[in-house]
Amino acid sequence: MTLQAIIFDAYGTLFDVYAIGALAEKLFPGKGAALSELWRDKQIEYTRLRTLCSTYKPFWEVTQDALVFSCRKLGLDMGLEAQSQLMGEYARLQAFPENLAVLQQLKQDGFKLAILSNGNPQMLEAAVQAAGMQGLFSHVLSVDAVKKYKTAPEAYQLGPDVFGLSAKHILFVSSNCWDVCGASWFGYTTFWVNRAGAPLEELGVLPDASGRDMNDLLSHVRQLKT
Amino acid sequence: MTLQAIIFDAYGTLFDVYAIGALAEKLFPGKGAALSELWRDKQIEYTRLRTLCSTYKPFWEVTQDALVFSCRKLGLDMGLEAQSQLMGEYARLQAFPENLAVLQQLKQDGFKLAILSNGNPQMLEAAVQAAGMQGLFSHVLSVDAVKKYKTAPEAYQLGPDVFGLSAKHILFVSSNCWDVCGASWFGYTTFWVNRAGAPLEELGVLPDASGRDMNDLLSHVRQLKT
Repeated sequence: MTLQAIIFDAYGTLFDVYAIGALAEKLFPGKGAALSELWRDKQIEYTRLRTLCSTYKPFWEVTQDALVFSCRKLGLDMGLEAQSQLMGEYARLQAFPENLAVLQQLKQDGFKLAILSNGNPQMLEAAVQAAGMQGLFSHVLSVDAVKKYKTAPEAYQLGPDVFGLSAKHILFVSSNCWDVCGASWFGYTTFWVNRAGAPLEELGVLPDASGRDMNDLLSHVRQLKT
Repeated sequence: MTLQAIIFDAYGTLFDVYAIGALAEKLFPGKGAALSELWRDKQIEYTRLRTLCSTYKPFWEVTQDALVFSCRKLGLDMGLEAQSQLMGEYARLQAFPENLAVLQQLKQDGFKLAILSNGNPQMLEAAVQAAGMQGLFSHVLSVDAVKKYKTAPEAYQLGPDVFGLSAKHILFVSSNCWDVCGASWFGYTTFWVNRAGAPLEELGVLPDASGRDMNDLLSHVRQLKT
């Protein structure tokens, strides 16, 4: 197998969304975990419903809708200031500690790197900057280009298109098991960064490999080359 | 507005899935609520992922996959007997108490009635029988005919097709807000049976009407006719 490029999911894979839960807990003591979990679930649910029904709107707006719903559902009285603070976290996410060094080494090893994310371009640009990852990626791909969220094939197709490679020669890396499954179904070679030690989804499809963090990814990729 | 037909979602709308949670609690004391909630969420999530990725498999199998995942995630040791018992509940669900009388009255009022469900035909047949609803429906429609789950337009299109009516002349009734939103996007006139008093999803679309149970639906429909 000759992998030539590596594509990364953004939120939860490159960028740590932990800070969002911490701020939620500060704003709504005792409810931070419930809010951040429901918010994330609803955010993903809304992207899927909008993709199934061809009613796309940008991820920033979907994320805000999910936040509004989640607060209402949990009976939390969120003013505009709290809303702005929580949404603002998406503009200044930190990378997981090992990520920057791993990305630099992968680039030095000759791989072309890209991001392929549900986030809209402005959100991704802000996150890449905040994480100090400028210049590492050949492409920062947003599903906004096709107005369909992952796991739609049109979204995954953005990768092969920009690299001029077949999906099986591209390694798709995500911390979200459903994303890895969708990418595997699409035809990518896949790696699951299973940071949480979660069980595999029962979708009848397996990632080609998995590990606990991006260091495991680096080891895996270097092993493939030898 | 001249409504001529009414289409019902099945699980949670016509058929009460409460018994599943009760059995789960009996099998896994203290974990029944968590299991039945995660099971339901995963069941729906898998239908969406499989529809987005054109990897359909029947609802019975998806439901079983979701159960296996949920037990593994919650650390519950489910033997084959417990699995069979839990799955078996889907074959003997009860109707909500008011449903049978309301359906009979709607039929007497001259409406054509149908079910449109993610369930596969065998599951729906068993549920209709167990609830004593034989003979009430002109059509029991399963998305299995199009191999795409709700909220895919192809699934909702089954209704207008069998009745030879435009969607706006059909009332689509569901207890699942996301289903009502999908049906509204598709073009149905919609009624949300909001049994749980849940907040409206933030999807930028509203049901045409809502109520707390099927008696509210009957009042609403009769009011429209006068």
